[in-house]
Amino acid sequence: MTDPDLDRSAALGPEARAAVDGGRLGHLTTLNADGSPQTTIIWVGMDGDRPAIASLADRAKLRNARRDPRVSLSIEAEGTTHGLPNYLVVEGRAEVVEGGAAEWLQTLAHRYIGPDAVFPPGENHAPGYRLLITPTRVRGNGPW
Amino acid sequence: MTDPDLDRSAALGPEARAAVDGGRLGHLTTLNADGSPQTTIIWVGMDGDRPAIASLADRAKLRNARRDPRVSLSIEAEGTTHGLPNYLVVEGRAEVVEGGAAEWLQTLAHRYIGPDAVFPPGENHAPGYRLLITPTRVRGNGPW
Repeated sequence: MTDPDLDRSAALGPEARAAVDGGRLGHLTTLNADGSPQTTIIWVGMDGDRPAIASLADRAKLRNARRDPRVSLSIEAEGTTHGLPNYLVVEGRAEVVEGGAAEWLQTLAHRYIGPDAVFPPGENHAPGYRLLITPTRVRGNGPW
Repeated sequence: MTDPDLDRSAALGPEARAAVDGGRLGHLTTLNADGSPQTTIIWVGMDGDRPAIASLADRAKLRNARRDPRVSLSIEAEGTTHGLPNYLVVEGRAEVVEGGAAEWLQTLAHRYIGPDAVFPPGENHAPGYRLLITPTRVRGNGPW
């Protein structure tokens, strides 16, 4: 599990932060126990300096990230660079924390569904989980 | 490098094939030498039963796939299921073959740029490389 990037950090600049907060779906890849990639599509937004997602239930992506924190997040973005569509890739180290899932999903629902969205529906939600990514490398096509 | 999926195949059904051929960008994740995920956004289309991408130059994703063929491809798709946007994830085994890159990029350019697109520009292109994915598992949100 040697990863020299784990001691580095790569703060996201304003354009990259805007891409994460732009209401476009994120493609999150974690590593299965056998090392193979597992990709899922998620809602994402910046929580301070870290891209953050939430889940009410414990899922494979969360179990994977607890076992091996190396993740990749890719997002299509507005505009083009060199004639091709912009996209952002954030490679980083994930931290899974308990609690706050419903609140974070509600915040993101305003961007992903609409300003009047109520999500998740109902009350008395489980505390759930949030996954926060400390960036170690920023790649892609665009002004980042 | 134990991966029980490598002996399995999971043919893509018509809806999944249409998603791959729909002109939406694909998010392709390969594995770096240290096992960390590397994601890049690519043009993709079905070549027979396999999602296929092309590159004129040898790139990290190709070197990664030669070393470890386990890859993941995710694509946002039209429509919704359970109220959330459809997306397709194809996990599979990649094969990297030499040649045919310019021709495949030209085929894809008609979908990704437009019916009159000429891409790559110029003549006498390098043979390049194609990466073809034998699906081992199909996941996501949608009719697949």
